Amino acid sequence: MIILTCAAATTLAAQQPDSALPAASNARGAQYPRVSADRRVTFRYVAPNARRVQVTGGSGLAATPIDLARGADGAWTVTTPPAEPGLHYYWFLVDSAMAMDPGSETYFGYNRQTSGVEVPDPDGDFYAAKDVPHGEVRERWYWSKVTGAPRRAVVYTPPDYDANPRTRYPVLYLQHGAGEDERGWVKQGRMNFIMDNLIAQGRARPMLVVMESGYATAPGSAAAPTPGVFPGTRAFPDVVIKDLIPMVDATYRTLADREHRAMAGLSMGGGQTMQIALANLDRFAWIGSFSGALVRDFDPKASYGGAFADATSLNRRVKLLYLSAGTGENFHALATTIRQALTAAGVKSEFYESPGTAHEWQTWRRSLRDFVPRLFRD
Amino acid sequence: MIILTCAAATTLAAQQPDSALPAASNARGAQYPRVSADRRVTFRYVAPNARRVQVTGGSGLAATPIDLARGADGAWTVTTPPAEPGLHYYWFLVDSAMAMDPGSETYFGYNRQTSGVEVPDPDGDFYAAKDVPHGEVRERWYWSKVTGAPRRAVVYTPPDYDANPRTRYPVLYLQHGAGEDERGWVKQGRMNFIMDNLIAQGRARPMLVVMESGYATAPGSAAAPTPGVFPGTRAFPDVVIKDLIPMVDATYRTLADREHRAMAGLSMGGGQTMQIALANLDRFAWIGSFSGALVRDFDPKASYGGAFADATSLNRRVKLLYLSAGTGENFHALATTIRQALTAAGVKSEFYESPGTAHEWQTWRRSLRDFVPRLFRD
Repeated sequence: MIILTCAAATTLAAQQPDSALPAASNARGAQYPRVSADRRVTFRYVAPNARRVQVTGGSGLAATPIDLARGADGAWTVTTPPAEPGLHYYWFLVDSAMAMDPGSETYFGYNRQTSGVEVPDPDGDFYAAKDVPHGEVRERWYWSKVTGAPRRAVVYTPPDYDANPRTRYPVLYLQHGAGEDERGWVKQGRMNFIMDNLIAQGRARPMLVVMESGYATAPGSAAAPTPGVFPGTRAFPDVVIKDLIPMVDATYRTLADREHRAMAGLSMGGGQTMQIALANLDRFAWIGSFSGALVRDFDPKASYGGAFADATSLNRRVKLLYLSAGTGENFHALATTIRQALTAAGVKSEFYESPGTAHEWQTWRRSLRDFVPRLFRD
Repeated sequence: MIILTCAAATTLAAQQPDSALPAASNARGAQYPRVSADRRVTFRYVAPNARRVQVTGGSGLAATPIDLARGADGAWTVTTPPAEPGLHYYWFLVDSAMAMDPGSETYFGYNRQTSGVEVPDPDGDFYAAKDVPHGEVRERWYWSKVTGAPRRAVVYTPPDYDANPRTRYPVLYLQHGAGEDERGWVKQGRMNFIMDNLIAQGRARPMLVVMESGYATAPGSAAAPTPGVFPGTRAFPDVVIKDLIPMVDATYRTLADREHRAMAGLSMGGGQTMQIALANLDRFAWIGSFSGALVRDFDPKASYGGAFADATSLNRRVKLLYLSAGTGENFHALATTIRQALTAAGVKSEFYESPGTAHEWQTWRRSLRDFVPRLFRD
């Protein structure tokens, strides 16, 4: 990693370095955005008649809008200071109107298809597509009795799943964050490559990973928001317990007991994981909350339905209670506070901190890499 | 279907009908675009400082840009005349700059992620997600020796593929059009639902369907365009023959002979299908070209390497040679001309015309529905 002083960064940001390459997240053939070896990003947007063009997005890149400069050809460009490694959502503000970048692949975030730029991480080999055995990512549609509508699960099956028709596998249920959906962990998180690489290295037990949309509404239920519940998510716990787990256990060769079933999620999904898994310890023994949207006034005796009130019992039943956060995000303080309260109450937990990263996918890619090798160990 | 006279359409287009509903293609929760029962589409884009906002896109919707009108709230809106049924790509022109719609799901077309609006078809039940047994759509990464890089195949496996571990299946290789990619047939084409429904009705034999990107370049190959070859596609035939088919036959339970292997594609992919399948009749016995980008000066004696020169031999080896086009597109005339030349030369073929549709996905959804039941019949 190259560390630049603020003065140097300001000078360098003025011109795009020759070494900059099209981002790995670009649409095929698109030349912009480009990323330099020192992680500065050059954006370009063609808007000959605009009066002002800015770029803004994720907290690791441009949380405060950055102005682009108009060229003689009507294309606006800017090169940013060095960004944090990882995938950053971004978009343009064209005379204050939101515009995605036609040069970028899109990623479902903020409840819309958002541009994104992949900034290489010197430590990013763990999510690279390598010449190792690959699992499959399967879209599976199924009928939900809870919502009365079809739903889509995304299921990672490990390499050789089809070649070993008598082998049964443990299952990790893995949830996205607010405004994202069941595609996020594969597309933004590169979870399939993380799993492939961990399994190839012998660091993770081959397992199924099931991803679903955290949004679910029962038919005819009140549209009014419920305090403490993300809008549109109220029926999701029922979907998991009554629809999703039975479908997965009936469709795939799973080890269908609590010792072989984990749940984890990021942000909103980390909150949902705590809510669902702790209320269903007959079904889950491994729990992970990455940058989790956890309760603000945590009380070990009362929060999460009192699941932590009897620390001895909980420690015996829960094989792993895992929290993580990036050191560059607000959720780090929340996770730290809750972990301290858990420890004081005698509840065992593990904690992972992603150095320097924000409330963004790099934190969650690293969390998954750290979390998965701990699962389903006796 | 409601038929409007031109005068009535003009009058109705001035105001959005109360019955309009958010398009099925919208991002979750997005209220616009909305589609009325008579297939008029209301678009909305927030751009308080823009001087002109237009919507344009696919030929069944707004091939000529349509102006939106600015409201007092800074949101621009318009309701179009009735559109053709099906999925139409679209985007906004904001003071002439291209902007996607934050309310829309995105679809990879024109080599970028493009907004799209689904206009219901009274005959669209065949691609609906129903409560029937569903196959899976699997992302499979594999290593290409031809390109020296990882590639992604998208593989549809029929319902019960995993439940019948001794059954082997025929395979259809199915290609997208220029500027699209291996995701198009599932996302835009809804091919998985078309297959599920045909199989549930007993109208199609259960089969695997393999979709790949039609773009492939060998390392170090000349970047200069080759006459008659779409840019960036030159190595694709080699990928199919040397990488893809061997990988599929090694990974899935296929019937790995020519009588159980078909190839089809749309537009550019229809041209590639003719190029690849006719040059490899030891590998393919079923051929489909939907709105195919076929040779302009077709000569039955010389075109496609002279594959049609011996009609008797070709008729014996090729179980199905199938052309299709929408009646509302230029490729209809091309397909008609070639079919007439084939017939005159004694080459057997089948022809399907999609009534009223353009060079858009509704033509190809209907073509797939018509084509698949003809495959793998003895």
